Amino acid sequence: MTSEDTTNTHLESIEEQDITLQFRDQLAKGDGDTLAQWIDTLEPDAIVHAMAHLSGEEQLLILRILDPEDAADLIDDLPDEHSADLLEEIPVAEAADIVEELDSDDRADVLAEMSEDDAEAILDEMEQEEAIEARQLLSYPSDTAGGVMVKEYVAFPLGTTVEEVLNDLRGNREEYSSYNVQYFYVIDHSGKLKGVLRLRDMVLSPPQRPIDEVMIADPDVVRVDLDLQSLQRMLEIHSYSALPIVDSSDRLLGVAIEKDVAEAARKSANKTMLKLVGIFGGEELRSMPTLQRIGRRLPWLCLILILTVCAASVIPLFEEKLTPEMIVALTMFLPVVAGMSGCSGNQALGLSLRELALGIVRPWDLTYVLAKEIRVSLLNGLVLGLLLCIIGYILNGDYWLGIIVGIAIMCNTVISVCIGGVLPLIVKRLKLDPATVSSPILTMIVDASGFFLVLSLALAILRLTGIEAGVVDPP
Amino acid sequence: MTSEDTTNTHLESIEEQDITLQFRDQLAKGDGDTLAQWIDTLEPDAIVHAMAHLSGEEQLLILRILDPEDAADLIDDLPDEHSADLLEEIPVAEAADIVEELDSDDRADVLAEMSEDDAEAILDEMEQEEAIEARQLLSYPSDTAGGVMVKEYVAFPLGTTVEEVLNDLRGNREEYSSYNVQYFYVIDHSGKLKGVLRLRDMVLSPPQRPIDEVMIADPDVVRVDLDLQSLQRMLEIHSYSALPIVDSSDRLLGVAIEKDVAEAARKSANKTMLKLVGIFGGEELRSMPTLQRIGRRLPWLCLILILTVCAASVIPLFEEKLTPEMIVALTMFLPVVAGMSGCSGNQALGLSLRELALGIVRPWDLTYVLAKEIRVSLLNGLVLGLLLCIIGYILNGDYWLGIIVGIAIMCNTVISVCIGGVLPLIVKRLKLDPATVSSPILTMIVDASGFFLVLSLALAILRLTGIEAGVVDPP
Repeated sequence: MTSEDTTNTHLESIEEQDITLQFRDQLAKGDGDTLAQWIDTLEPDAIVHAMAHLSGEEQLLILRILDPEDAADLIDDLPDEHSADLLEEIPVAEAADIVEELDSDDRADVLAEMSEDDAEAILDEMEQEEAIEARQLLSYPSDTAGGVMVKEYVAFPLGTTVEEVLNDLRGNREEYSSYNVQYFYVIDHSGKLKGVLRLRDMVLSPPQRPIDEVMIADPDVVRVDLDLQSLQRMLEIHSYSALPIVDSSDRLLGVAIEKDVAEAARKSANKTMLKLVGIFGGEELRSMPTLQRIGRRLPWLCLILILTVCAASVIPLFEEKLTPEMIVALTMFLPVVAGMSGCSGNQALGLSLRELALGIVRPWDLTYVLAKEIRVSLLNGLVLGLLLCIIGYILNGDYWLGIIVGIAIMCNTVISVCIGGVLPLIVKRLKLDPATVSSPILTMIVDASGFFLVLSLALAILRLTGIEAGVVDPP
Repeated sequence: MTSEDTTNTHLESIEEQDITLQFRDQLAKGDGDTLAQWIDTLEPDAIVHAMAHLSGEEQLLILRILDPEDAADLIDDLPDEHSADLLEEIPVAEAADIVEELDSDDRADVLAEMSEDDAEAILDEMEQEEAIEARQLLSYPSDTAGGVMVKEYVAFPLGTTVEEVLNDLRGNREEYSSYNVQYFYVIDHSGKLKGVLRLRDMVLSPPQRPIDEVMIADPDVVRVDLDLQSLQRMLEIHSYSALPIVDSSDRLLGVAIEKDVAEAARKSANKTMLKLVGIFGGEELRSMPTLQRIGRRLPWLCLILILTVCAASVIPLFEEKLTPEMIVALTMFLPVVAGMSGCSGNQALGLSLRELALGIVRPWDLTYVLAKEIRVSLLNGLVLGLLLCIIGYILNGDYWLGIIVGIAIMCNTVISVCIGGVLPLIVKRLKLDPATVSSPILTMIVDASGFFLVLSLALAILRLTGIEAGVVDPP
């Protein structure tokens, strides 16, 4: 780090603390409007950072002192889990006022992060129309088209003229300002989607023409239960900025906006990463209450502990068969072989998670993955085996120890990489979450096989050489 | 899995194989246009999947038999690394023809994945104007605004009328069809950005009005060197679908489209996940050549091997001091304590990576992270310690062994979680990549401290009880 970097970091650090302090000062003034105006001048990044560093009480005070609309703007800046935690702590009526001000998809996202009771209490306090809409959006799984769709769209009945549409747009400019207005939708009397209107086509059409003649008839649509991954690829490949979402009778339910979908995909990629390191559900923020955070981590740790102990139970099986001297000599290599193979297997496991997400592999492509991983694992295993063989010989001065640990790590690398590659596919076929389940299973298998390989190779060598040398009794 | 699921999976599996086979059939016909038309009927997902499952030669043949434009469409569907690998294998002139057909940002992304020599050779073959543009885009780091910007935007000089703009849009409809046309840009004679025009405002303005009066003057802009994370938050919070990118003299350089930025963020989240499992640079696909894939994995594995052996070297230090019986009894718990603490630390590490990406923590927030992690680690450590203490007692029948391993895992969990939490921040302050560097360092420290804690606690207990029992000689 250069001295300039250090200075910059230091300056930025002071500036950040300053914003948290300024938040406190503004809050102390006790006026919601002044506070809202001041927050408006901040970069979104600074808001997220400062909120996380204020105390829980201060955060709640800020939320309650602001107008519901301003509070909703603030809530919108924060991660959903953080927003949900805050809204659960303030009186239900106030929370409902704020939630009503959110966009329909953000509203559903925040409610989905709450406990069912809290979400239900807030929904009961909300205006009926918005509550019905929110309940409907909440009913769709978050990894489907329904889970990301918004209700903010403009639809016109068949037969409307271009002029009528433009007049409607002018008249409702305020209301539509937050809508995606590149597309409008054309529906029949039963709400079935008949076509899509593009703003640019409207601009270039005579005012009296009915929209039936301007619209794209038979447009691409998405069924409400389509999975998020396929939806994203559809938007990406066709370069659509939005797609209409319909039910099984082609009735228009909502719209999937490209950026909402991309945002959902990014959240899902981040969740996968957290699940992979063992955070339950992939959701944790340091602003959460300590007990809640422990609940996201501890169950997985306890599971791993049991699995690891099971794997390590292989070791005592050899206690009677090997000499204590031999076990002592091998002790330092047991965690090395098991840990290293775990690392190799995790590489293949991570790659499978990614390729599953990209659609490059499907749950039934076991032979493809095996064929691709076996070559990599053989070469990597060979190199690691040779390396550890040399290290073992140098550290112990005994060539047999080098051979044992070298062969063990070589074989265990192949086992681990192959299992790591196919395990996420198998777990997915069993309709379980591959990011959560795969890694603990891999660790247990690879630990057990690593210990077994080292110790049984040692036993084999002992039997071969030891009998001659008289170290062990002949059978 | 229900029998219906199995049937579905099986059916889908057959369908997938079928598409790969159909690809071969279509390819065998030897006609590029027929092949392109057939590919057009496929879902993007099916294309990505089928291409990955064809042999390298078949993939190259497909690319070469298609028109450059159709080949570019195909390339656009594939992950960048895959596209780059394919283009590097075909003759440079053909690759250049295909690359020219890509959108400016996709072009830069694919070229960035190639070796410098191959990219240079293709650039030399391209038309001068496009090559200059591509070189310019390539010069910006991929994690900055410049790295995601596109050159496909429409700008008009000050003084143009609304009618002239609409005429230009009508006249160039074809060319602009792939552009983001929600915004147009207004520049002065030196190319400085003066305002932003919204399509919807144009529609509602008299034709003769100069755009100077319709545009949003003094619009939000982004400097070309702004980091991706801040750019994304700006788009997200203001709900912009695009932002103009300018240099230090406010000259318009390009446009950042919301969906390109979200896509870049998603790629970056996926890369972080792969780096975390130890894949160098976060880039690997099973379609890559085996040696290249080994190059992404093996260096990291060799590094870990050395670090792990260093950590395990703590064990022999105690060989002389403890009795062989004691070491044999402890052997199975050494990998358990080290491995489990590693898992706990990785949870905190993953969370720090995520909070760094979200802007919730900054590299200098060490005390904040420590304060938040210490509580969680104390409680988790206590529970894991009690659990392992009981397990140790049950398996060994000796209460001292339970106490040793229980205390060791408790202390090591606290150490590991605290280090795991702050390490990514420190690594980031040193301008290194936290996702790549943090995990190996954590593993080494935690392994070493785990072994040390178990063995030195055993030594302490041996000295306390052993002296009385006469197991060891008094000092």
